[in-house]
Amino acid sequence: MTTKKQVKSDLQIAQEAKMKPIKDIAAQLSVLEEELEPYGHYKGKLSLDIMERLKDQKDGKVILVTAINPTPAGEGKSTVTVGLAQALQQLNEKAIIAMREPSLGPVMGIKGGAAGGGYAQVVPMEDINLHFTGDLHAITTANNALSAIIDNHIHQGNELGIDTRKVTWKRVVDLNDRALRQVVVGLGGPVQGVPREDGFDITVASEIMAIFCLATSVQDLKKRLARIVVGYTYQNEPVTVADLNSEGALTLLLKDAIKPNLVQTLEHTPALIHGGPFANIAHGCNSVIATKMAAKLGDYVVTEAGFGADLGAEKFLNIKARMADIKPEAVVLVATVRALKMHGGVPKTELSKENIEALQEGMKNLEKHIETIRAFGVPCVVAVNRFVTDSTGEIETIMSWCEENSVKVALTEVWEKGGAGGIDLAKELLQIMKTEESNFAPIYDLSATVEEKVETIAKVVYGASGVDFSPKAHKQIAQFEQYGWSYLPICMAKTQYSLSDDQELLGRPENFRITIREFKPSIGAGFLVALTGSIMTMPGLPKKPAALNMDVDENGQAVGIF
Amino acid sequence: MTTKKQVKSDLQIAQEAKMKPIKDIAAQLSVLEEELEPYGHYKGKLSLDIMERLKDQKDGKVILVTAINPTPAGEGKSTVTVGLAQALQQLNEKAIIAMREPSLGPVMGIKGGAAGGGYAQVVPMEDINLHFTGDLHAITTANNALSAIIDNHIHQGNELGIDTRKVTWKRVVDLNDRALRQVVVGLGGPVQGVPREDGFDITVASEIMAIFCLATSVQDLKKRLARIVVGYTYQNEPVTVADLNSEGALTLLLKDAIKPNLVQTLEHTPALIHGGPFANIAHGCNSVIATKMAAKLGDYVVTEAGFGADLGAEKFLNIKARMADIKPEAVVLVATVRALKMHGGVPKTELSKENIEALQEGMKNLEKHIETIRAFGVPCVVAVNRFVTDSTGEIETIMSWCEENSVKVALTEVWEKGGAGGIDLAKELLQIMKTEESNFAPIYDLSATVEEKVETIAKVVYGASGVDFSPKAHKQIAQFEQYGWSYLPICMAKTQYSLSDDQELLGRPENFRITIREFKPSIGAGFLVALTGSIMTMPGLPKKPAALNMDVDENGQAVGIF
Repeated sequence: MTTKKQVKSDLQIAQEAKMKPIKDIAAQLSVLEEELEPYGHYKGKLSLDIMERLKDQKDGKVILVTAINPTPAGEGKSTVTVGLAQALQQLNEKAIIAMREPSLGPVMGIKGGAAGGGYAQVVPMEDINLHFTGDLHAITTANNALSAIIDNHIHQGNELGIDTRKVTWKRVVDLNDRALRQVVVGLGGPVQGVPREDGFDITVASEIMAIFCLATSVQDLKKRLARIVVGYTYQNEPVTVADLNSEGALTLLLKDAIKPNLVQTLEHTPALIHGGPFANIAHGCNSVIATKMAAKLGDYVVTEAGFGADLGAEKFLNIKARMADIKPEAVVLVATVRALKMHGGVPKTELSKENIEALQEGMKNLEKHIETIRAFGVPCVVAVNRFVTDSTGEIETIMSWCEENSVKVALTEVWEKGGAGGIDLAKELLQIMKTEESNFAPIYDLSATVEEKVETIAKVVYGASGVDFSPKAHKQIAQFEQYGWSYLPICMAKTQYSLSDDQELLGRPENFRITIREFKPSIGAGFLVALTGSIMTMPGLPKKPAALNMDVDENGQAVGIF
Repeated sequence: MTTKKQVKSDLQIAQEAKMKPIKDIAAQLSVLEEELEPYGHYKGKLSLDIMERLKDQKDGKVILVTAINPTPAGEGKSTVTVGLAQALQQLNEKAIIAMREPSLGPVMGIKGGAAGGGYAQVVPMEDINLHFTGDLHAITTANNALSAIIDNHIHQGNELGIDTRKVTWKRVVDLNDRALRQVVVGLGGPVQGVPREDGFDITVASEIMAIFCLATSVQDLKKRLARIVVGYTYQNEPVTVADLNSEGALTLLLKDAIKPNLVQTLEHTPALIHGGPFANIAHGCNSVIATKMAAKLGDYVVTEAGFGADLGAEKFLNIKARMADIKPEAVVLVATVRALKMHGGVPKTELSKENIEALQEGMKNLEKHIETIRAFGVPCVVAVNRFVTDSTGEIETIMSWCEENSVKVALTEVWEKGGAGGIDLAKELLQIMKTEESNFAPIYDLSATVEEKVETIAKVVYGASGVDFSPKAHKQIAQFEQYGWSYLPICMAKTQYSLSDDQELLGRPENFRITIREFKPSIGAGFLVALTGSIMTMPGLPKKPAALNMDVDENGQAVGIF
């Protein structure tokens, strides 16, 4: 059963793993030798030529792993994603993982590693959590090269007439650095540039990361980069990267990063780990290129999306799957007894005690997400990720509720047992994909108005009774109409902790309205971000950052990453 | 003869090259399979285990390539470095290059690529000039992680009592970004941190880059990082990385970057390209680890140092060679007829016309550098890098001057002919190393006072009549005494264009004094930077940055990098 009482840390388990050379993992996928660019012995990038070579091959089935609204109790969505693929492989199915790559900021800050956990991890864990193959550094560099080009344009005469008060493009670092949230740049007199207010986001919040993850090819990447709006002129006209002639240089900086990264799980299941945009101001899914390549290389692609189903799955289905023409065959909805009890009102300190009543109340959160997945027409199975503290009565409560409501369900213990702990889930899933057809369709049309699109998401996915738009949001919608941006899908930025926009309302809130304060257009990525509150795009470090425990020992081994 | 009239660009020549797989280049050096970490098919990192395995093996001979004071006419120091190694290999000698890795900032800004030129290049040229194996990104990240930790420490209560007005540690980006030279961070109220003045340098100006290049092992790297002084307390006591408990995390961020990068020349000569600190506020040489590893793997190591001999060679010999216990066997001093004529007073537009008189005047610059190299006790050969515009009379003038003054000299045409154009130089060099013994010794003792050390460099290397220290510099010297830093070597920050500290004084100026305005202690790197004027540590972009011509074509090939 899933527990963190084990003596071994994730890092220890990962470092003790006997990995296969990456060329063997690639061979397992019938990747040609020249299509694998090794990065060390256990990581590699896959050539985009694979897509051309396999263009006539039937795609594998895409399975999306999502979860209930996250709580401090943890759900283990990434761990289930990895464990499920390991289980499918144990059943002799050709499974492949398509996951997001972690950001260094949180690794150095609070949470340590982010590559699954226990015996359901992708490895080499410390490489993946540190610089990996440099994708995030390439994105950081492209983002900041654009900033330098903008400020240089302004400094060198500002031919385009960019209003320095309306530059919306921010700089980024892949770190948690609160002091950079609001800065003034260009100080020091006429030789040093033009002073203006600016700010730094964490790299994963960059629109370039979102573009990187939605691009379908290098040429599509370039087109999207060209469309980025970096700010507005004195006449309030949008200024794009194309206006600055810079899409070529930005594409060049990303030309290697755009190739998916191949690694393996502790059980040698192939995993493509590529791209990782924020799940609030962006869509929170790994790259389209990796997902589509995984579908060419495997029979079953296990992928995940950020936060709970109200954010991650909604965006996967309405934005990514729509744009990239991906048809998900099934959705796995991860829940834990502990997290459901929190949704039922139990405080974190009391989670080890049996509480059937709270569990039943909390299961309304799960119920809402099941309804949502069904609204998209995709078959769904609930994965209950077990902990030692779960009582038989509690497990029984979930199982019988699922049976009464014709919901497919399976218990998993992948943290402790690896793939073996996910066999039931894998079997259930294979059965569902054999018997239930996916009738996937996005829940709104792009031709609907911006208001209608937001309202559909709020009502169908969150269970809200309606949406209020601020005067500013109304004004922006009119502007979008004028600029020709109204046809874009909506990317909701909302608290991940609640179905509503109030993070205190756990479980399944009712009779609430959603407020859209303002929009942030991401024209290169191709969506309009609708902000329900203030969204943190640059985290801070805690009093004792995780970094202070990190080290390299005498043998050159990493220490202190989780 | 060397000319840029050829139709093919450096990038074209590089892209047409038939490279050998990097594993073959490694095998050529008897590197074991597990000691090579491939990064793609044509780049790799070499394990530091090689140093342990070969610790009893005799070191190869180290040859330093330096030059006269640079002029806008260009000298081709990197090109000669590459061409010389190619020539040695053509003579069946086991030669290996140890060079600096380029910074992205200048590549995107003005100068395009930096990996040799013509038929004397290291390849894959575009990879080396873009992200390469991510070393600079790792250094950027480590530098900025330290900044985030400093500002977080101040924000979280400032236990160490850091005076926010005396934080000397700056942030970095690997870009030319003038708007970041002077900034204010921490704005936005109490939740966003503590406002203070800050600035960004280009990554190669980071002290971490200097440390990276002087470290002899991972453990030495950690020790040096721990010693970095990031600022001062309200009581004016230095605050170090060790005080912030962060040397482990910074070392972890650099643990892969510290491994030397293996690539090849157009003629498959092995090249270690690793580290590249600024040649003004740092010592301007590639990494000690790469140089020492090259000496274990090859019989002849061809390495270079930044700018002219007054800066690059002086620092290579007084700082790097001393710290790392490297004994250079010979120095190659690169000059061109065109550049010598500029030193003799000819404007850039008139360089194609024969002008023996100006050449003779300009050769005094060359003469001074020859004297300098002799002062260090190292045998020296002049390499005259030919251009089509050089007249027979001009070449004759140099050759006969060298003969009269017992100076060894050879003509090179490596840009046009590759190694074949460097055979004469290679033969001359082999002859010198057979017949002349190197009696290398630094020109000052570390036990001398700070003033004495600066004066020795100014008099012996620059030909100055003396040194003036500003009141601020005097005050700092007294402080260094108090902090125990006086024993450190001096790293001069001076214009590269003149032997003096006035960039207008070309040729061989006489009767001048050097002024030290202030010092910048780099305690982690282990030297005191003596600043003679304002040193640019963050370049700006020109009106039309090179980036605007860069692109990726339909075949995924880089376009526009030189």
